[in-house]
Amino acid sequence: MDEIITLDYGSGGKKTSRLIEEKILPALDNPALRQLGDGAVLPGGEQLVFSTDSFVVSPLFFPGGDIGKLSVCGTVNDIAMCGGVPKYLSCAFILEEGFPLKELERIIAAMHDAAEAAGVQVVTGDTKVVERGRGDGIYINTAGIGVLKYPGLSPGAIRDGDAVIVSGTVGDHGTAVMLARSGMAQGDIRSDCAPLHKLAEAILSLNAGARVLRDPTRGGVATTLNEFVEGGTLGIELQDGAIPVNGAVRAACDMLGLDPLYCANEGKLLAVVPRENADAVLSAMRALPEGKDAAVIGSVTARYPGKVVMQTALGGRRILQKLSGAQLPRIC
Amino acid sequence: MDEIITLDYGSGGKKTSRLIEEKILPALDNPALRQLGDGAVLPGGEQLVFSTDSFVVSPLFFPGGDIGKLSVCGTVNDIAMCGGVPKYLSCAFILEEGFPLKELERIIAAMHDAAEAAGVQVVTGDTKVVERGRGDGIYINTAGIGVLKYPGLSPGAIRDGDAVIVSGTVGDHGTAVMLARSGMAQGDIRSDCAPLHKLAEAILSLNAGARVLRDPTRGGVATTLNEFVEGGTLGIELQDGAIPVNGAVRAACDMLGLDPLYCANEGKLLAVVPRENADAVLSAMRALPEGKDAAVIGSVTARYPGKVVMQTALGGRRILQKLSGAQLPRIC
Repeated sequence: MDEIITLDYGSGGKKTSRLIEEKILPALDNPALRQLGDGAVLPGGEQLVFSTDSFVVSPLFFPGGDIGKLSVCGTVNDIAMCGGVPKYLSCAFILEEGFPLKELERIIAAMHDAAEAAGVQVVTGDTKVVERGRGDGIYINTAGIGVLKYPGLSPGAIRDGDAVIVSGTVGDHGTAVMLARSGMAQGDIRSDCAPLHKLAEAILSLNAGARVLRDPTRGGVATTLNEFVEGGTLGIELQDGAIPVNGAVRAACDMLGLDPLYCANEGKLLAVVPRENADAVLSAMRALPEGKDAAVIGSVTARYPGKVVMQTALGGRRILQKLSGAQLPRIC
Repeated sequence: MDEIITLDYGSGGKKTSRLIEEKILPALDNPALRQLGDGAVLPGGEQLVFSTDSFVVSPLFFPGGDIGKLSVCGTVNDIAMCGGVPKYLSCAFILEEGFPLKELERIIAAMHDAAEAAGVQVVTGDTKVVERGRGDGIYINTAGIGVLKYPGLSPGAIRDGDAVIVSGTVGDHGTAVMLARSGMAQGDIRSDCAPLHKLAEAILSLNAGARVLRDPTRGGVATTLNEFVEGGTLGIELQDGAIPVNGAVRAACDMLGLDPLYCANEGKLLAVVPRENADAVLSAMRALPEGKDAAVIGSVTARYPGKVVMQTALGGRRILQKLSGAQLPRIC
């Protein structure tokens, strides 16, 4: 482990994992924190889901969204992926001296709209200001509370033969932000930033035995799928041709040297479900706008324990590692 | 209102209030957010208290504490002041590229110790990294959930004649941080950073009709007392000589041009209680180490509606306004 923090530690990939595993978890250990996923299920009369994320995306505004919309959707989605119904958000701003109020108003308006769309209320908050050169306009933290409606979702529940489903095209958010950052924003590439609570409800209310849901944000689909299988006896085999990618996103990724499978998504989810229920789940997902391009992209298999393997169109195979280093710093 | 964010907007005083009142609340309005205080009480079977704070204190380490301890105590205290029993925390780091891992470990260890002392668990978290020059080592957000045990605490509950109590010496945290920042740290001036859940429990379990509790952090005692009475028909009259101030803190404040009444505290609370129960409350507070210097410092009065007035030792009176501008930027 390095002695100083490098941008890689914020990638959502291997170094982020190491930092969390080696430095943070051991110091703060407790059963709820050890639960896999981006939220904690809290014991009690009515079980709660609790999650937090800080948002440091650059630029603050990009096609399809902004840091405000992102900060609401990100935490709402973490709760929904845990089987929770999102209810309440906190919202904390770290503002840099000199930040234009107009931009803050625009961001807060976007938070309002996103909260309304997601059916949550922002109920508490905080505002701090740091000197010029000690921030970057605005950073936002949200924490969220949801009521656990569908318990038991966990990567540990996946079984040999299960179907792996993605809810739509991959890599849109990461690509849109990278293009905006480089000043090359294109109208046809937009962040997919959206709340996923309805899509999660559509899947889980089927009682189709869904094993795990997760939104593949930092680190993208490849990293999230690795998190499902790492250290276990099962692996995941993906079919290259089955993974939906927007044509413009693919072209932009080629140009920028990115792989859509490692690009962040902010309005997509991965679901692992029993093979026999995959069609029913797909139909339910496709009935919603945010799931219209849902597709089965692969299967759980005992053949590659702990690994995610891509079957290429030409019949080859390659291992998809977790993201290593910061392919896309400050993407969310 | 200015067009850009200045450091004043983070002071915890008037400009922070204006920013929140004019820009943030109208956009995100809902009944829970409108509740006064630093946390929200959430409806439901078991009522919850939810609060958040981001911590940007500079320097990161100071006599009596560090940003890690502060980030746990700050949110724990906000929950305790709402009548909640703190249970769960989230913890989100924004790290600056180049930040030494050793310092991060030390900070996380301090969070662990503080969480243990406060009886809370850190159950979920997040880590982001920003480029050099876009942060300042580390910023920490914590959000916290508590179970509401003592409902009804509110500035709206204060009555003419009530006693105003402070739990100990004022200004220690702000002064310790300012001295540390200027490189003049003195051993006998230490931050009072501490969890206040036991002190709150000691007061509230008396069933002595406590009206409101609040920890006077940014903006200090003067600003918090103003928040109790602003816009109302009652005021607060303070007795200058009755307010406990550590002698070394008073001397340092004189030197730095600060007023201890406007300096942040991180381990003190203000309580407004019925006059006839003030002695019982004081005894209960003084029985705990964190309340040993508790004192009645003034009364609620109808004579100065909406104002906080100081009776000086020489028989004069002066109005204590809310903090205006950033007397002490980045104090927490």
